[in-house]
Amino acid sequence: MASAATMPDGTAASFPDGTVDYTPLRSSAKDLRKPHITEFPITLNNWYKHVNWLNTFFIIGIPMLGLISAYWVPLQWKTAAFAVFYYFNSGLGITAGYHRLWAHTSYKATLPLKIYLAAMGAASVEGSCRWWSRGHRAHHRYTDTEKDPYSVRKGLLYSHIGWMVMQQNPKRIGRSDITDLNEDPVVVFQHRYYLSCVLTMALIFPTLVCGLGWGDWFGGYIYAGILRIFFVQQATFCVNSLAHWLGDQPFDDRNSPRDHVITALVTLGEGYHNFHHEFPSDYRNAIQWWQYDPTKWMIFTWKKLGLAYDLKQFRQNEIEKGRLQQLQKKLDQKRATLDWGVPLEQLPVIHWDDFVAEAKNGKALVAVAGVIHDVTDFVKEHPGGKALISSAIGKDATAIFNGGVYLHSNAAHNLLSTMRVGVLRGGCEVEIWKRAQMENKDVTYVND
Amino acid sequence: MASAATMPDGTAASFPDGTVDYTPLRSSAKDLRKPHITEFPITLNNWYKHVNWLNTFFIIGIPMLGLISAYWVPLQWKTAAFAVFYYFNSGLGITAGYHRLWAHTSYKATLPLKIYLAAMGAASVEGSCRWWSRGHRAHHRYTDTEKDPYSVRKGLLYSHIGWMVMQQNPKRIGRSDITDLNEDPVVVFQHRYYLSCVLTMALIFPTLVCGLGWGDWFGGYIYAGILRIFFVQQATFCVNSLAHWLGDQPFDDRNSPRDHVITALVTLGEGYHNFHHEFPSDYRNAIQWWQYDPTKWMIFTWKKLGLAYDLKQFRQNEIEKGRLQQLQKKLDQKRATLDWGVPLEQLPVIHWDDFVAEAKNGKALVAVAGVIHDVTDFVKEHPGGKALISSAIGKDATAIFNGGVYLHSNAAHNLLSTMRVGVLRGGCEVEIWKRAQMENKDVTYVND
Ligand code: HEM
Ligand code: HEM
Ligand SMILES: [Fe+2]
Ligand SMILES: [Fe+2]
Ligand SMILES: [Fe+2]
Ligand SMILES: [Fe+2]
Repeated sequence: MASAATMPDGTAASFPDGTVDYTPLRSSAKDLRKPHITEFPITLNNWYKHVNWLNTFFIIGIPMLGLISAYWVPLQWKTAAFAVFYYFNSGLGITAGYHRLWAHTSYKATLPLKIYLAAMGAASVEGSCRWWSRGHRAHHRYTDTEKDPYSVRKGLLYSHIGWMVMQQNPKRIGRSDITDLNEDPVVVFQHRYYLSCVLTMALIFPTLVCGLGWGDWFGGYIYAGILRIFFVQQATFCVNSLAHWLGDQPFDDRNSPRDHVITALVTLGEGYHNFHHEFPSDYRNAIQWWQYDPTKWMIFTWKKLGLAYDLKQFRQNEIEKGRLQQLQKKLDQKRATLDWGVPLEQLPVIHWDDFVAEAKNGKALVAVAGVIHDVTDFVKEHPGGKALISSAIGKDATAIFNGGVYLHSNAAHNLLSTMRVGVLRGGCEVEIWKRAQMENKDVTYVND
Repeated sequence: MASAATMPDGTAASFPDGTVDYTPLRSSAKDLRKPHITEFPITLNNWYKHVNWLNTFFIIGIPMLGLISAYWVPLQWKTAAFAVFYYFNSGLGITAGYHRLWAHTSYKATLPLKIYLAAMGAASVEGSCRWWSRGHRAHHRYTDTEKDPYSVRKGLLYSHIGWMVMQQNPKRIGRSDITDLNEDPVVVFQHRYYLSCVLTMALIFPTLVCGLGWGDWFGGYIYAGILRIFFVQQATFCVNSLAHWLGDQPFDDRNSPRDHVITALVTLGEGYHNFHHEFPSDYRNAIQWWQYDPTKWMIFTWKKLGLAYDLKQFRQNEIEKGRLQQLQKKLDQKRATLDWGVPLEQLPVIHWDDFVAEAKNGKALVAVAGVIHDVTDFVKEHPGGKALISSAIGKDATAIFNGGVYLHSNAAHNLLSTMRVGVLRGGCEVEIWKRAQMENKDVTYVND
């Protein structure tokens, strides 16, 4: 928000590892040793001190005024078309500029493209690029923790807008390294002259276009200016809220980021946020051609036009590895919920003679692969008929079961293992332990 | 086909295990010791001997005649409606009767239901239930092998219709146990009087309905009789062809059966054939409520009406185990195609001092979890900035990498492992081998 304009100019002391502390806004005016307002609970007496009134005015107040004024200003279709067009451009200023270019350096831009992006970013009124990127890097570094400036763990509304309209304790926000941004003249210029940039690009420019273009000064100001700002803001805020709340987690489910096409549609393609948090320096958010990522398409177009270069991509191999491990994790969770029969190591060890004797005494026991199975309840249900399975009682049916008479399906092997009651002393151990490995192998991984 | 009617009546000698040999049709008339025609290649001189002319006439000849006659017989809408209705009923005779009731005994039926199903099965003209079930059990037992009566390995057309219109060597077809069918009076009756049953149910009955009902004798004969037979035949043949050819293999991909909704639509729900071959005695073919399996819905309705009982279902646990193992298998195949870095056991073991010395000499080496990584090419690409990663060169960065400074993502761990160049002597071995287990654990399973 505009409040960033009042920040000291990139001269905060750096830590030896290159990161800088989050310098509080208007730090000179306030005493840092005094406890911050956020350290007190919200009460009826102090609640207004918890609100960041400047931000509230910019994010909620102005749009309200715009909405009310719109009642008296008719919407011309040329103005409407320009407002939509300008909406996309200013949105790209945030997604392709602030986010993918500056916060993540996922590609390099030539000077003209940088100027365009910084200008469009200002037109969105979401704070200076320098301020935004610092917060965003902290968000990636400390995702979902106390140090995450817009942690969704504090609620969807908080991550969407609360973190701006409520006072923040600057000491809480994590540190991040923005030395590269301090060296970028476009970023530094936009930061230094932020308020002028915002006024020019967010309000004056769209008013001029509509006024000089087709005489709709008021419409340009209200629709292409104020209301367009409101929509761009709400849309891009969704990256912090919706993208951490709605959808799947194909790459990692330890943190909150999620992939969803709805978020993508709202945010010019930033909706594949699980991918993005896992591979933040990839210039793409969507990796499939059929997924909606216009920001990626624009960056790619700029590359073809010679305006962008060094587009970074994670190797497909790394991406597939991540996807595979997440699938594996889900499979292992599922595996742990299923009944795989009594673990072999908990079964009694039985002598061959005892096995034969018990089977003679009427117990329907069948040995397969060194394990003894009680098939009493299954004989009449056996899909291969009573006769065949009965013929194996009291015998080692390993070979018949595995192709000698019928090559049983995997399902039959699974079913068999739920019937096991003992291990043959000196049975075919290789088989036994192979099977054990297959069934339990991932349990260790789950418990890791 | 009708040829089954000429088979000897269920008196073939049984093997001790309860199975019976495939008794050739008209065995008394032919000398079994003479080489069978299928043992000779097809030539211009003997091709007609390879054709089973009786079956060909029933499957292709009669429908042709029907199609031609239809030209002169106008189709009345009542007759059309009845033909469709009768199509579904006779189709159920095969799917719910021949297939799920008799071949797989997946549920039990009361006498009235059995009579209805046997009658409708006859109306489909696909051979007696006894003959059909024996072949079908052999198909399940010897799926895709030489002994499978309609193995899709011999081509899609063969599995669809070729196995009936071409002569078969009876010695080739696998044995199966049908003692239970020989004890079922309905099955035995239908087998003994098969030709009469077929004539009555396939032709006379529909002709009578349409003739007595609304005077359309010819239409009933042509549309509800002959052409309806043709469509039912072609549809149910798809279980042997399409269901082994089109679709996914969610439970087991070692054999040909596949799941596909198109096959299901054509075959009254028999299209979830991968499931079916894995769980043949389950009265369902589709296990999800939203999948198309009208045969299952009918059996369930009959149960509610008290006509069917003892509906068999595999435990959901067993089904999920099968699905999980198949997913695991695919995951393992995928895993084997990815680059997981040089296996740890192939890396040189390096002393701590050598590591530090090499790093001092300008090599960008970082130790993490007992493994040494060469990050030279990665420093400038590091999403966390050059400064941070450089600060770890020549050091053990295990703690910083794992949360001390930043808790790296799984993707970062994967990437890291592609950069490894050595193992630290006496490094934290537990970590090393844990990792190795996680990466390679399923390779053994794949090679099983
Ligand atoms: C010992 C426990 C046994 C279990 C748990 C078992 C389980 C099964 C299962 C689940 C099937 C369905 C098809 C499949 O999944 O592959 C099946 C089919 C079959 N079983 Fe078994 N079976 C056992 C023993 C035997 C024995 C000892 C024989 C032979 C002597 C045998 C012969 C067959 C045959 C021939 C079929 C094929 C039936 C068909 O597909 O039409 N089974 N068995
Ligand atoms: C040794 C090899 C290293 C590799 C392969 C590596 C890899 C990565 C990767 C892939 C990311 C992107 C985010 C993620 O996947 O978690 C990342 C981010 C990060 N790395 Fe590293 N890293 C390495 C070393 C280090 C070291 C030694 C430090 C600190 C001293 C460090 C600090 C960070 C930080 C702070 C981020 C977060 C950046 C952000 O999200 O804005 N990394 N690293
Ligand atoms: Fe995020
Ligand atoms: Fe990001
Ligand atoms: Fe089949
Ligand atoms: Fe079947």
